[in-house]
Amino acid sequence: MNQNRFSNRILKSNKSFIREILKVASQPGMISFAGGYPDPELFPVEELKLSTEAVFAKYGFKLLQYGISEGFLPLREKIFDRYYKNVNHLDLGPENILITTGSQQALDLIGKVFINPGDPILIERPGYLGAIQAFSLYEPNLIGIPLEDDGLDLSILENNLSRIKPKFLYSNPTFQNPSGNTLSLEKRKRISEILRTYDCILVEDNAYGEIRFESDTIPDVQSFYPENTLSLGTFSKTLSPGLRVGWICAPKEILEKLLIAKQASDLHSNLLSQIVLNEYLSRYDLDLQIDKIRSSYRLKKECMENFLKDRLSDSAQWVSPKGGMFFWLKLKKGIHSMELFEAAISNHVAFVPGFPFYSESPESDTIRINYSHSSLESIETGVLRIAESVRKISKVTV
Amino acid sequence: MNQNRFSNRILKSNKSFIREILKVASQPGMISFAGGYPDPELFPVEELKLSTEAVFAKYGFKLLQYGISEGFLPLREKIFDRYYKNVNHLDLGPENILITTGSQQALDLIGKVFINPGDPILIERPGYLGAIQAFSLYEPNLIGIPLEDDGLDLSILENNLSRIKPKFLYSNPTFQNPSGNTLSLEKRKRISEILRTYDCILVEDNAYGEIRFESDTIPDVQSFYPENTLSLGTFSKTLSPGLRVGWICAPKEILEKLLIAKQASDLHSNLLSQIVLNEYLSRYDLDLQIDKIRSSYRLKKECMENFLKDRLSDSAQWVSPKGGMFFWLKLKKGIHSMELFEAAISNHVAFVPGFPFYSESPESDTIRINYSHSSLESIETGVLRIAESVRKISKVTV
Repeated sequence: MNQNRFSNRILKSNKSFIREILKVASQPGMISFAGGYPDPELFPVEELKLSTEAVFAKYGFKLLQYGISEGFLPLREKIFDRYYKNVNHLDLGPENILITTGSQQALDLIGKVFINPGDPILIERPGYLGAIQAFSLYEPNLIGIPLEDDGLDLSILENNLSRIKPKFLYSNPTFQNPSGNTLSLEKRKRISEILRTYDCILVEDNAYGEIRFESDTIPDVQSFYPENTLSLGTFSKTLSPGLRVGWICAPKEILEKLLIAKQASDLHSNLLSQIVLNEYLSRYDLDLQIDKIRSSYRLKKECMENFLKDRLSDSAQWVSPKGGMFFWLKLKKGIHSMELFEAAISNHVAFVPGFPFYSESPESDTIRINYSHSSLESIETGVLRIAESVRKISKVTV
Repeated sequence: MNQNRFSNRILKSNKSFIREILKVASQPGMISFAGGYPDPELFPVEELKLSTEAVFAKYGFKLLQYGISEGFLPLREKIFDRYYKNVNHLDLGPENILITTGSQQALDLIGKVFINPGDPILIERPGYLGAIQAFSLYEPNLIGIPLEDDGLDLSILENNLSRIKPKFLYSNPTFQNPSGNTLSLEKRKRISEILRTYDCILVEDNAYGEIRFESDTIPDVQSFYPENTLSLGTFSKTLSPGLRVGWICAPKEILEKLLIAKQASDLHSNLLSQIVLNEYLSRYDLDLQIDKIRSSYRLKKECMENFLKDRLSDSAQWVSPKGGMFFWLKLKKGIHSMELFEAAISNHVAFVPGFPFYSESPESDTIRINYSHSSLESIETGVLRIAESVRKISKVTV
């Protein structure tokens, strides 16, 4: 087939590397630290089942008819009350919430509404690969801002803002995917001042914010910069990813544009899921559900870190994540992530080599390891297998 | 806010006119022929409820985990068996089906995969406004091909194909929205030859194909041109629009590109709905459900046509639809669709003035009237009110 038939944007896009990895990772006998999947055993199946039965009785055919593009209002009210009621200085309400088909769709709509080909966009380096994929289809100039241990490098950020006028900064400041890194409180305040000075929109993706392992919370960057922040949230990490319910909270003028894009993209997100989640939130305490997830993932994280310290402290460095679902390992000199990946696959353990997380000039010495989706036993065996793979390729190299 | 922040595509898009109409149309006391809503009383609520209960028992947490971007395989197999098994000459299988978030998303993905700004795209005149909206965000040059009583004007189509190389022809050949018009069998064969000659892709949107009022079926255009057709289908008109499950059936090479776009757009469509629909299709006979819809809409259509003949035959002309959900009225000289719309709204009846259905140079003498969503009583009263509105504006004009 004549390739000229396709759009430039799609001709530039490769088949997703991570999809290929996930195929390999699902082979029998493989221990997979590759996906970013939540632990399905923590899904509140019974509660969601009861909620579903209740809404069929309560709403009948209304569950099944077309809904409005903004999303089911009672759910938007609950999201607003839980996540945005205390955002200061901004006239925000449930009408500022747009329900999306997972927060992946939020990224797509943001690309649609903001990006002209060639527009500069700032993103963390390394950055969330789903965002890189979604934005890339709008052909921006993605510029990576390096991460330090306490989050974005603010001098490089400011340097970029002073030279160019990016459409927005995309950031995942809390328990970032892939690095597990969290922007410090001090930097949250400073970044808001910098963004305000240069009048730059912030897209704050808060997918992992509630999966924290310590008791102290940290305010969203939005709370310091409410007038120009788009906040992204999701139920994928707390209740269920398969229901595909995420949201954007945005200032009115931006929300109106997002709504036009939403309508053209899929009219509205699945109504049944929205109403089921709304019912769940009416009947149950989401915080109890989140507490379960926090305890379980904290244990898995500690378990994995212990094995990493035992087995891989000579071969890799990492920042201990305070929440979220991932370790990000920087490999010692001479270990190439793809080489290690191939050895690991032969040894029946999978992870994601770091390079798809770089918007440009990928580093070859990083890997992402997920702990949320594996049992403690698999975590032990899997880390052991990675350590064996490191030894194997080191021998070959020597 | 600085408008330069937004993308060109969104700055060119207006707030949807039809959304504004639907707001007006939902006012109390209003009879609305405006939306394209199915009759909710025909939704198989009980069957879908039982199917939902069954899948919670059967699949448990698998319902709630991430799914694959292609969609739930057993559902894709059922769609393939029902709709595509007999398409000749093409090596098609369930792997050629991509599940989308309603067929609106199919339109968006097609725009993403094919359209560069300025690319020529052919569409019926009048054409489906959801397609015009979805494609417009990719900034094509939309060229309208007029409809005759038996479908697209083939000489104008061929004339365009000989002069330009459009990315595709988008067509809704069976019980078209908005015109109710159906492409004749003879023209289906001829159009396939023409498209083959000029090597032009066909996007065949078959949202209404099963809602036919006569017993004879007509083969899809795809069956004459399988190698270069993207076929779009949906459960929105037969089972439930709120579940947002549609699909694209496309040749492999195109499907691969659509899949990249799908992944970047929302990862995958709601899994619960897909599994519920799959269960419904295992347990019940969709044809019995469709028979109910056909009988009901046929009756409503006949009822509306009788009242139109009684009350509006002096003021408008139409082609009697053989299926689908709409009458498309061409108003007699001197009656302007917006003027009539405003008078009708004052008289508590709503419809859609024709102009959003034209990709360029809208006509001002057409209106779309829906019958599927109103009771027989409302159909009588509504048509009466439209007739009164015609008399009212005619007096004013004289």
